[in-house]
Amino acid sequence: MLKGPCAVDLDRLLTDITDHARPLAAEGAVATYIPALASAESDRFGLAVVEMDGTEHATGDADVPFPIQSISKVFALVLALQKIESAGGDACDGAALWERVGVEPSGDPFNSLVQLEHEEGVPRNPMINAGALIVDDELVERCDDARASFLDLMSRLAGEEVTVDPDVIEQEGTTGHRNMAMAYLMSSFGNLRSAVPDVMDVYVNQCAALMTARQLARAVRFLANDGVDPASGEQIISGPHARRVAAIMLTCGTYDASGQFAFDVGFPCKSGVAGGIVGALADELGVCVWSPPLDEKGNSKAGKAALHELSERYNLTVF
Amino acid sequence: MLKGPCAVDLDRLLTDITDHARPLAAEGAVATYIPALASAESDRFGLAVVEMDGTEHATGDADVPFPIQSISKVFALVLALQKIESAGGDACDGAALWERVGVEPSGDPFNSLVQLEHEEGVPRNPMINAGALIVDDELVERCDDARASFLDLMSRLAGEEVTVDPDVIEQEGTTGHRNMAMAYLMSSFGNLRSAVPDVMDVYVNQCAALMTARQLARAVRFLANDGVDPASGEQIISGPHARRVAAIMLTCGTYDASGQFAFDVGFPCKSGVAGGIVGALADELGVCVWSPPLDEKGNSKAGKAALHELSERYNLTVF
Amino acid sequence: MLKGPCAVDLDRLLTDITDHARPLAAEGAVATYIPALASAESDRFGLAVVEMDGTEHATGDADVPFPIQSISKVFALVLALQKIESAGGDACDGAALWERVGVEPSGDPFNSLVQLEHEEGVPRNPMINAGALIVDDELVERCDDARASFLDLMSRLAGEEVTVDPDVIEQEGTTGHRNMAMAYLMSSFGNLRSAVPDVMDVYVNQCAALMTARQLARAVRFLANDGVDPASGEQIISGPHARRVAAIMLTCGTYDASGQFAFDVGFPCKSGVAGGIVGALADELGVCVWSPPLDEKGNSKAGKAALHELSERYNLTVF
Amino acid sequence: MLKGPCAVDLDRLLTDITDHARPLAAEGAVATYIPALASAESDRFGLAVVEMDGTEHATGDADVPFPIQSISKVFALVLALQKIESAGGDACDGAALWERVGVEPSGDPFNSLVQLEHEEGVPRNPMINAGALIVDDELVERCDDARASFLDLMSRLAGEEVTVDPDVIEQEGTTGHRNMAMAYLMSSFGNLRSAVPDVMDVYVNQCAALMTARQLARAVRFLANDGVDPASGEQIISGPHARRVAAIMLTCGTYDASGQFAFDVGFPCKSGVAGGIVGALADELGVCVWSPPLDEKGNSKAGKAALHELSERYNLTVF
Repeated sequence: MLKGPCAVDLDRLLTDITDHARPLAAEGAVATYIPALASAESDRFGLAVVEMDGTEHATGDADVPFPIQSISKVFALVLALQKIESAGGDACDGAALWERVGVEPSGDPFNSLVQLEHEEGVPRNPMINAGALIVDDELVERCDDARASFLDLMSRLAGEEVTVDPDVIEQEGTTGHRNMAMAYLMSSFGNLRSAVPDVMDVYVNQCAALMTARQLARAVRFLANDGVDPASGEQIISGPHARRVAAIMLTCGTYDASGQFAFDVGFPCKSGVAGGIVGALADELGVCVWSPPLDEKGNSKAGKAALHELSERYNLTVF
Repeated sequence: MLKGPCAVDLDRLLTDITDHARPLAAEGAVATYIPALASAESDRFGLAVVEMDGTEHATGDADVPFPIQSISKVFALVLALQKIESAGGDACDGAALWERVGVEPSGDPFNSLVQLEHEEGVPRNPMINAGALIVDDELVERCDDARASFLDLMSRLAGEEVTVDPDVIEQEGTTGHRNMAMAYLMSSFGNLRSAVPDVMDVYVNQCAALMTARQLARAVRFLANDGVDPASGEQIISGPHARRVAAIMLTCGTYDASGQFAFDVGFPCKSGVAGGIVGALADELGVCVWSPPLDEKGNSKAGKAALHELSERYNLTVF
Repeated sequence: MLKGPCAVDLDRLLTDITDHARPLAAEGAVATYIPALASAESDRFGLAVVEMDGTEHATGDADVPFPIQSISKVFALVLALQKIESAGGDACDGAALWERVGVEPSGDPFNSLVQLEHEEGVPRNPMINAGALIVDDELVERCDDARASFLDLMSRLAGEEVTVDPDVIEQEGTTGHRNMAMAYLMSSFGNLRSAVPDVMDVYVNQCAALMTARQLARAVRFLANDGVDPASGEQIISGPHARRVAAIMLTCGTYDASGQFAFDVGFPCKSGVAGGIVGALADELGVCVWSPPLDEKGNSKAGKAALHELSERYNLTVF
Repeated sequence: MLKGPCAVDLDRLLTDITDHARPLAAEGAVATYIPALASAESDRFGLAVVEMDGTEHATGDADVPFPIQSISKVFALVLALQKIESAGGDACDGAALWERVGVEPSGDPFNSLVQLEHEEGVPRNPMINAGALIVDDELVERCDDARASFLDLMSRLAGEEVTVDPDVIEQEGTTGHRNMAMAYLMSSFGNLRSAVPDVMDVYVNQCAALMTARQLARAVRFLANDGVDPASGEQIISGPHARRVAAIMLTCGTYDASGQFAFDVGFPCKSGVAGGIVGALADELGVCVWSPPLDEKGNSKAGKAALHELSERYNLTVF
C-alpha cells in the first residue's frame, strides 16, 4: 500500500484531482498535424494509478484507448535493451548502443536537426525523435519482426492485447517529413544503418499503438521495480537498465520541460503528442494520465497539472 | 541511521571506495586556467558523508579546504531564494526570479554564449555560469553586502567560519573574460541590472570560498531535509524551494554529464572546477568528495567514481 | 579583343598560367564520396577563355569532359528564370522564387542544415545545395521534362550536344543522404512542393552533365552580355536577371571562400566538386578552368590559382 | 567624365533621384538605441557624387554633417592596412591581420556572438562589429594615438577638418553592452590583445566622427582609384589592398543585405546606423547618400533606393 498521508484515500484523491485538472484542458490545444490527432475529443480525461501489488485506481476515461505516440520511445528502448541483454557477451551492458545515442538532455526541441548536425549524427538521448530512430534501427537489426515484437512486449506488460490504429500509421507515414530529414541526416553520418523506410515503418507502428491509461500504468511499473514486471514476475530488463531508463525519463522525458517536471512532478515521466503521460515512482507505483490538449512545450496541459497535484498531495517525489 | 545493506559498515565502505577511486585521478587533469587551480595537488582525495542525525563519516583529505568554485552556485541560489522568501508577498515563490533564469538543462557547455543569445539573455538554469550571474545580480540588489551574506550562510551551514582565498579572487578577476562577455550580453538584453563589475565581484568571491569536504557534506543536508538544517533546526528555505534546488541539481548540476550522473550516481549533485562534488539524498544524507583532476566534462574524475560506487554499494538512488 | 595589357598575348599567358598553376594540384585532394569522382585523374588541367566575339583560347585538357556538378546550379537557376519570364505576368520578375530562396551568402558550409532549420526551410541562396533543390522544385513544376530541358539549355549554350554520366547519376542517387535530409526538411516547412524523389532526380541529373572547360567557357558568356548568348544572339534571360545571377555568383558562388574569391579573382565564379570553376567578366569573356584536386573549402586548388593569376596579370577585375 | 547614357545630365539625375527616393524614408525608422540617433531629423536627405577629376554633384542635405558610425569601419581598416604597409617586411601584405579577422560574409546579424563563439573568437570580416574591434585592436598597438590618427586620415581624405560628436561618444560608451560582450569573448580566445576599454575608446570615437555626404563621397574615391587619393595624388594604401577593401565592402558591407545590394546597386557600399551609405565604383566615382530612417536590415531605406536608381539609370554596375 502506498505511503501517502494516512488521512488521504487514493481513490477519492484521484477523483478530486480529476475535478481540478480536467478544466485546464481548455487552456491547451490538441495536436493537429494529422487528422487522427486533430479529431481527438479534447475533453477526454483519464487517470490511472497501479500499485506494485496490483491494486488499480482509475477515474474518467482511464479505459479509453489512445495512440501512445512518443510514450512508445520508453518501451522501444526497453525492447532494444532486452535484445542486447539476451545477445549477452560484451554487448550486454548496452555500451554499443550508448555510442550511437546519448543520455543527456538536449536543450533543443524534440525534433531539432541543429544539434544532430553539430554532434555528427549522434542524437542526445533516446526520448527525442532522432534518438528513437536510432533505437528503432537497433530493433530492425535485432528483431525478426520489430513491429510484432514491440506489440508483443506492450501486450504482455498491459495484460491485454495491444493493437495499432491503421489511420495513424497511414497519416504519420505521409507527413513525417522532418523525421525523414533526421533519418537521412543520421544516414549521411553513418549512424543509421538500415534503409530509412524500414526504420520509419517501425517508428510509425509503435507511435500508432492504442492503449488505455490503465494499461500504460500497469505497463510502466517494472521500471519502478528493478526491471521486474510485478504482474508476472518476469525480469523485463536488468535492474541497472531499468534504473537507467528511469533516469533518462526524468532528465529527458518531457521535452524542454523536463526540468520543470522534475520539480513539479518529481518522478520519471514520459509524454506523448496524443496527450498521454506515464510515470513511475521507485518501489511505489505506475501512473498514466490522458488529456489530449497540449501546452506550448508539447505536454498534456491537464495531464501535467494532475501529476503535479498527485505528487504534491500524496508526497510522491524523489527529492 | 542509513538504510543501506545491513552487512555494510559505512566507515569501512568509505575506506574501500577511497582505495578504489583515488587512483582514477591519474586519468584526469587539474584545471589550469588560473595558477591557484593549476598548482592543486592532484593526489588529494577527501570523502565525507554526514547523516541527518549528525553522524559524520570521513576519509582521506576530508578536512583540507579547497575553493568551492561552482558548488557555490547552489548556495548562492539558496541565498537568493531566502531573500525572496523573506521579502514575502507575491514574490515569495520566486516567480520573478524564474523569468530571469530557467530551470531546464542547457545541452551546451557551461559557459556557452550561443544559447544565451538565441534565448535573449535568459540563461537556461542557475547552475551554468550565466545563470549564476543572474542569481548574483539578485544578491547585489537584495543584500546589503552580498559577499558577506554568502560567507555568513556558508559558515552557519558548515558549523565553522568560512573564508575566501584572496589569490583565487585576484586571479579569477583578471582572467574571467568569458564571464564578462556573458554578463555584458545579458546587460545588452536588459536581464542583468546592476553594473557588471559589481556582479562579478560577488561571483568571484563565492567561487573563492574555501571549504572542506566535511563542511560541504554538512552544509548541503538541508536540501535533503525539506529545507531545514538538521544541525540547527533552522528553516533555511521552504520545503518546495529546497526540492526545486535539488531537482535543478539533478538535471543541471554536473554540466553536460547530468544525464550520466542521474544514472551512475542517482541523486542530486553539483560539481566545481577545483574537483569538489556535493550531493544530497532525500531524508538520508549529505555527501562531498574532493579530488582535483577533472574528466573531459569538467567533473572530478575520481570523485564521480567514488559517488558511483557509494550509490551502487549502499543502494543510494532515487530511481 | 580583350583590353588586357597590350604587351601580353593571351594564348601565351594561358600557357604560362597552366605551367604555374598545374603543380598546385598536388596540394589538393580529389573528392572521394563517390567512385566516379574518386577515380578522377588528379593531374588533369584544362583552361579555356572565350571572348565575346567568339575567339577561343584553350590550353591543356580543355576539351576533356568532366561532370559539371555544382556548376549546374547556375544554369538550373537560369532555366528557372527563363521559365518564369516566359510565364509572364506578375511572375516575370521572379519575385515568387525569391520568397522561396534568398540571395544572401550563407556563412555556413554548402550543405549545412542548421541555417535551413533556423530560417524555416528557406535556403540562403541558390548556389548551396538546399537552394538548388528549391530551384529544381520550380523546374519540376514548370517543365514537362526538367532533365531534358536542362540538357537542351546546356547543349545550346555549349554549341555541342551535352550528355550525362550514368555512373554519376547512379552513385549520387544512392549516397545523397544529406541532400535527402535537406529536401525532407524543406518539405516539412512546406517550401519543397513536389515529391522529394522527383526533385532529387532533376538534381542528380544536372550534376552528372558532362562538359569540357571550352564548352563551359562558351556557355557562361551570356551572363556577361546582358543575358544574350553572343554565339546565337538569343536572349537567354533578361539583362537584369543575368546581372542578378552574376551578383549571386560573386557573393555566393564559391562556398565559404566567396569573399576570398572576390578579392583574389575579382569577378563572378561558380565551382563544382569535380574541380571545375566557371567565371564571367562583364562585356569581356567567359572562362572555365578544370583541375580535380580541391582545397579545404571545396574549390579546385590549381583552378583557383589559375584564375587568380589570370585576373592579376590581365587586369580582369570588377574592383 | 562619367560614361553614363549621354542623354542624361548627372546633376538633373540626382535631383530626380532625390525627389523619388526621399519619400521612402517614411517607410523606415531611425535608430533609437541612443538619444543622439533617436533625435535625428528623419526627413534629412543628402546625396553627393564626386568624380575622379574632382567634379562634385550634390543635392539636398549633402553638406549637413552626421555621425558616420559603421562607415568608419572601412576607413579604420584602411588605416590599419596603411600602418601594416609602412611597417614593411613580411607583414606588408596584411597576412597577420587576416589570421585575426576573416574576409567572408557572416550570414548572421552584424552583432551576433554565435559565429564568434563557434569560430573561436575570429570574426568573419572587418565590416561587422566584432571584426571592427579587432581592427581597432591593431590600431591601439600600431598608432601612438589611434583616435587622432583616424580623424587625421578622415580630414585628409575629406579635404576639411573632421571632428567628433561628444554626445555620441558619451552615449555609445554607456550603452555598448553587446560590443563589450564581443570584445571580452574575443579576449577570452586571446584574439583581442589590448585592454577592452582601450579598444572600445577607439571604436566609439570613430563611430562618432561627423562628416557630410559630400566629404564622404570625396573620401572614398581612393578605393576606386588603385588606392590613390585623386585629390592629392597620395597613395593611401596599395592598389591590391584598395581592391581587397572594395571586395570586402561588396560582399560584407551592408550587413545581411549584401547580396541584395550586389544586385540592386551593383558596386561596393558600406552603410552606417545613422543612415549614411558610401559607395565606390572603380575608375568612376565616389558616392554618399544620407537619410536617417533604416529598413529592417539596418540600411538607410531611402538611401538604398537612391543608390539603386542611380546605378540603374546611369548604368553604374560591375556586373
